[in-house]
Amino acid sequence: MGDLKGACIIGQSGGPTAVINASAEGVIETALASEDITQVLGASHGIKGILADQLFDMGKEAPKELSLLKYTPSSALGSCRYKLKDSDEDDTDYKRILEIFQKYNVRYFFYNGGNDSMDTCNKISKYMQKVGYECRIMGVPKTIDNDLMGTDHCPGYGSAAKYIATSCMEVWQDAHVYDTGQVTIIEIMGRHAGWLAGASALATYEGYGPDLIYLPERDFDMDKFLADVERIYNDTGKCFVAVSEGIHYADGTFVSEAKTSATDGFGHAQLGGLAAYLSSVVKSRMDGVKVRGIELSLLQRCGAHLASKQDIMEAYEAGKAAVQAALAGETDKMIAFDRAYDAQGQYICKIKEMHLSEVANYEKKVPLEWINEEGNGVKQEFIDYAMPLIQGEPDTPKEDSLPRFAKLKKVLASGK
Amino acid sequence: MGDLKGACIIGQSGGPTAVINASAEGVIETALASEDITQVLGASHGIKGILADQLFDMGKEAPKELSLLKYTPSSALGSCRYKLKDSDEDDTDYKRILEIFQKYNVRYFFYNGGNDSMDTCNKISKYMQKVGYECRIMGVPKTIDNDLMGTDHCPGYGSAAKYIATSCMEVWQDAHVYDTGQVTIIEIMGRHAGWLAGASALATYEGYGPDLIYLPERDFDMDKFLADVERIYNDTGKCFVAVSEGIHYADGTFVSEAKTSATDGFGHAQLGGLAAYLSSVVKSRMDGVKVRGIELSLLQRCGAHLASKQDIMEAYEAGKAAVQAALAGETDKMIAFDRAYDAQGQYICKIKEMHLSEVANYEKKVPLEWINEEGNGVKQEFIDYAMPLIQGEPDTPKEDSLPRFAKLKKVLASGK
Repeated sequence: MGDLKGACIIGQSGGPTAVINASAEGVIETALASEDITQVLGASHGIKGILADQLFDMGKEAPKELSLLKYTPSSALGSCRYKLKDSDEDDTDYKRILEIFQKYNVRYFFYNGGNDSMDTCNKISKYMQKVGYECRIMGVPKTIDNDLMGTDHCPGYGSAAKYIATSCMEVWQDAHVYDTGQVTIIEIMGRHAGWLAGASALATYEGYGPDLIYLPERDFDMDKFLADVERIYNDTGKCFVAVSEGIHYADGTFVSEAKTSATDGFGHAQLGGLAAYLSSVVKSRMDGVKVRGIELSLLQRCGAHLASKQDIMEAYEAGKAAVQAALAGETDKMIAFDRAYDAQGQYICKIKEMHLSEVANYEKKVPLEWINEEGNGVKQEFIDYAMPLIQGEPDTPKEDSLPRFAKLKKVLASGK
Repeated sequence: MGDLKGACIIGQSGGPTAVINASAEGVIETALASEDITQVLGASHGIKGILADQLFDMGKEAPKELSLLKYTPSSALGSCRYKLKDSDEDDTDYKRILEIFQKYNVRYFFYNGGNDSMDTCNKISKYMQKVGYECRIMGVPKTIDNDLMGTDHCPGYGSAAKYIATSCMEVWQDAHVYDTGQVTIIEIMGRHAGWLAGASALATYEGYGPDLIYLPERDFDMDKFLADVERIYNDTGKCFVAVSEGIHYADGTFVSEAKTSATDGFGHAQLGGLAAYLSSVVKSRMDGVKVRGIELSLLQRCGAHLASKQDIMEAYEAGKAAVQAALAGETDKMIAFDRAYDAQGQYICKIKEMHLSEVANYEKKVPLEWINEEGNGVKQEFIDYAMPLIQGEPDTPKEDSLPRFAKLKKVLASGK
């Protein structure tokens, strides 16, 4: 084991997060410091950059700029959504990847992404084994959705959760400023899992957050929702609702995609998103009530200025650990986290490795027992889970009081 | 002059900002420290709280909580949108205000708001003079819209501008992550003036901002807009657009309110806002192109975590100066700012006073000569104007890494 000399490739894949570049920085800095790794290559737009032979020589970047990656949101190397076919079916891409690996003598491949990316890692690894090309392949997790199996949580989630909680606290203040009635509906990302929408409960825990929270783990019932809103509005004159974009009816139809609805009867395509749609339904039911729909949109996944320091640190460590494990001879693994608590009850994040096949193509949802009976809020277990993940402020360097993002030269590498 | 003993009222009015409470804190702390002011009363929901005799005794609040007001967004005392009738027409409200002023021996009134609020101040002041009730009335400016006449800028604008610029920089990163095409349209507040939308140019100045910016100061032409977007998209594969919610066609119709349009031909009511509408128009023109509409919504006016320290300080000083001026015998004035530069070219904010009648009911727009010829961007003059206003980070205290807002007891006051 160990002692495999050659170049490495780091690629980023899937939707961006506030800290995916922190993981890249962890990989790049650790790889650059290693004696076994002869060249550190950054793939332009993930696997697509490998197929297109668009690889940047990360050794040509200024160390100071690399150190800013941890404060730079989104994927600095570029990302992609590209699914490899099974190699039994069509091995064109695999042959091309092998060709590129040979061209640069790539012996280490680090892929930073969600469950699709882990699937990509797994497939490439199996192919390389089949053709007898020695290469160590490690996955580095990332997703604001927090839905990877086998890991306590995913890098990217804590920062998005903090953005959501903080924004909800601020919107609460705004939504309570007049003595007239108002219903506010905030739409949060999460197609299949409610981890992000649930994070709005951190705001409620602090005293300023949604009264009602709907996650995709429970079927959505429009009548029940309207009754919930009306009850709280009648009691308090306000109602603040958080919804996951992925809420769906009992038959599986996404509420956001329901073109017609017995409840609203509009019967035409909705231009706005879910928040706009639910606002229109509430308006038509509660005549004359002011309703505001707010969609957190991309802001929640790129809001690096509100990142969690804990998340940045863990993302960096995940990248570093992937390189260290590969150098020690590991392959076909994804870095994952276990949660522990010290004697003082302080949260500790422990790094472990998992087999790629245990992660690829699964989705982890919010446990049903963390959701309240009514299906319109989360329990203390969720707060206890999420709170440690949002801690600490990033030391983002500023210029003109605006964030100073990493500026990469992206010099194309030439072969070995 | 000077030497008028009695209570004071501080009221907040109009849409909230990130720093309106900093002005309230400036008024309250300065008034509490004064020997002439015998009681400091906070009006619940502005003028409505005076009419309803809902006044809080601010002397009963913990000083530590008052000191957190400068980091607490929205209007802590509650706001209102209430327009007084002319007293010649109907003096019911004025009689009631006089009654309340007499009940509490109110001799100082500080009203924190936009141009409608300055109109309210002016009317009350004239009435009090007419009936011979001695009372000094001062306006404290606030508005994210930055549209008050006679002042270089308004408290609240700098923080909203910083939120917009930072968010645009982050969204730019997200919108450029894939090598596939994308048009991103971000909708920014500002019904009649483009100061807020213009602030997105600060992001462009830093290297990551909108390619196109449309302000309400120039008529909007849908065909020209679509041609602009197509040109940039064809050149670069991306196009990032910022629009003011108040953009309108040459005939004055707001684009957001245009129910039918020759360009899109949908012909039905739009549920979403302007960004959703423009996205649909771009989609129907540029077939197959991915388009994202983002509305910054309430987030931009309550985003205290991204406030400008300069703005917080100036908002506080405006409140303080209002009390000091009133104590010195001034009345019927609004605090305003002049801009100066020191020998090193550093921005200095100078406080001045203006007559209420010079401010009430006027609107200050972005100078046309600061907008580019094409009407799709702003010039360096705008950058030079806005940049000093967003400087410095707030020292927001946190609990659980989330903002710790001021918690007021709001003890109702009893009469003198």
